[in-house]
Amino acid sequence: MTVSSPHAALLPLKIIATGVALPPGRVDSSALDTLLNKPAGYVEKRSGVLHRFHATTEASQAELASQALKDALARQHLPADSIDLLISASAVPMQALPCTAALILKVSGLPSGTPGFDINCSCVSFITALQVAAGLLNTGIYRRIAIVSADLVSRGIDWDDEESSLIFGDGAACAIVERGDGSSGILSSLVETYPEGSDLCEIQAGGTRRNPRAGISDRDFLFHMKGKQLFRQAAALIEGYLARLLASSGLTLAEIATVVPHQASHLSLEHMRRRLGVPSEVLVDIYRYHGNQVSASIPTALHTAFTTGRVNPGKPVMLIGTAAGLTLAGMVLLP
Amino acid sequence: MTVSSPHAALLPLKIIATGVALPPGRVDSSALDTLLNKPAGYVEKRSGVLHRFHATTEASQAELASQALKDALARQHLPADSIDLLISASAVPMQALPCTAALILKVSGLPSGTPGFDINCSCVSFITALQVAAGLLNTGIYRRIAIVSADLVSRGIDWDDEESSLIFGDGAACAIVERGDGSSGILSSLVETYPEGSDLCEIQAGGTRRNPRAGISDRDFLFHMKGKQLFRQAAALIEGYLARLLASSGLTLAEIATVVPHQASHLSLEHMRRRLGVPSEVLVDIYRYHGNQVSASIPTALHTAFTTGRVNPGKPVMLIGTAAGLTLAGMVLLP
Repeated sequence: MTVSSPHAALLPLKIIATGVALPPGRVDSSALDTLLNKPAGYVEKRSGVLHRFHATTEASQAELASQALKDALARQHLPADSIDLLISASAVPMQALPCTAALILKVSGLPSGTPGFDINCSCVSFITALQVAAGLLNTGIYRRIAIVSADLVSRGIDWDDEESSLIFGDGAACAIVERGDGSSGILSSLVETYPEGSDLCEIQAGGTRRNPRAGISDRDFLFHMKGKQLFRQAAALIEGYLARLLASSGLTLAEIATVVPHQASHLSLEHMRRRLGVPSEVLVDIYRYHGNQVSASIPTALHTAFTTGRVNPGKPVMLIGTAAGLTLAGMVLLP
Repeated sequence: MTVSSPHAALLPLKIIATGVALPPGRVDSSALDTLLNKPAGYVEKRSGVLHRFHATTEASQAELASQALKDALARQHLPADSIDLLISASAVPMQALPCTAALILKVSGLPSGTPGFDINCSCVSFITALQVAAGLLNTGIYRRIAIVSADLVSRGIDWDDEESSLIFGDGAACAIVERGDGSSGILSSLVETYPEGSDLCEIQAGGTRRNPRAGISDRDFLFHMKGKQLFRQAAALIEGYLARLLASSGLTLAEIATVVPHQASHLSLEHMRRRLGVPSEVLVDIYRYHGNQVSASIPTALHTAFTTGRVNPGKPVMLIGTAAGLTLAGMVLLP
């Protein structure tokens, strides 16, 4: 269906460009079979990933983010100096101080003086950043905002934990947004945080909690997940959450043309597919060739949706994900 | 002077409550004289700080943030369940994943499901968070937002570096904001990032840059500052920056009733006082009794301005600070 525009409850927002970046190192599941002493086909079957990309330990998160930004600019022939705010919307920062946006700006080619700050809502940072960007654009303080999500989760993979180690990939993606003319925008947007699940998915190092003064070990730098509990908590919440998101959009599930989910895992995507009951062409699934790219998954999948003709004017797009926190975030966009 | 309201260019925003929290451990400069083998009076003279507060190594950043939030709620008799978004606006996070907002929500007493995310713009995070909150409140997505800034910089003090070690204190502060009726709000708001100065003030650990895979040492967890270069770069930029901030507010410096600066250092406050040429009652200076509390400095000083009768309807208030990044941020508010 096509929603007639301008829509009464539409918060104006227009995505004018998207772009992506991947580190050069492709890691095939077959290579991991050998590395981890598993039978041929084991890792692909267990993870649902054919290959993912891992940066070298020297590679820079800011450089990868900057590549995605430059890709978005180049695809739509936008000049770098037309960006008047850079939002870094990654889960794990580059360092504790300053914010990652400053470090991205440094290598981005954007003019010195361009403002930047970080928004962090773990794996769904991109959705909250879109919400924030829409608010700012409608104030008139900014006219064109670049949102970049970049995560190098390979730095935190715990190779002793089979469940999480096989699914993760590095990556970056960017969306450039404007207010637009009011014919496109956000129909609904909903973030819910259930902090009783904050320890189900975490990296404890990185700030005031674990450090040489408070005590730290090398394992604190690794990603740890209690997969079953996480899945159980998310599964218990998703039904009600989805109903609330749709209700505030004024649409039914059947009216959503394209669903861009977080690419959390094979299991989570299967669950989403069954739960939504949507045909596979509606659900954007890039997991098999990227793995879970943390905050970069949603904008990378959105870029794929744009470049494969699955984002069309007047056809509603839903972004949705569950994330460490535990946070559920979603948005219904009218492109 | 009093600005007549409603103002043409005013972005509606109303600060309805503020609150603060300090860890119990007061560190007197006289005690540091003894500890650091300095003559009596040395630390106070060198730093300009009489005392600051340092948390124990067991203390939780989220708990301190939560105390500031509860203080703000209690002072204005606001129920916890009336907050519909929590923004954590701290410089250094609690851990790499999930975001600090989730960890604050967990101990806050706010209902499960209340959304939260982080905004990070190092020491001026509170100013960018206010800008973001104003945008979101004017979309109608949220009606009442709590912004909390909490930093435990004592975990990263390099006691071998005299310049930075003597000035820092821990703390947290909160502001609760609504859209209001349009008679109060933001007259201008300006953020500028000059990333060529990103290495003048940093903590390199905490993310993808320094960790066991990329290489790390205990010193990477410490705050490092190139004070002279930082001061030189900030001093070269501040004049033009201030002119731009004022121009977009439509006010002159003489029309600003109260200036709430970042409490960076004795020197920076002196420079701000001279540069602005404002009487000392206009400039809110809490540095002597708090030190530099990183992101908590500006909202703690703002709370002091409110509780000492220096924020009055129709009388413009300027928030301003320079921060790691290097970022300059400021805002002219009509309370």
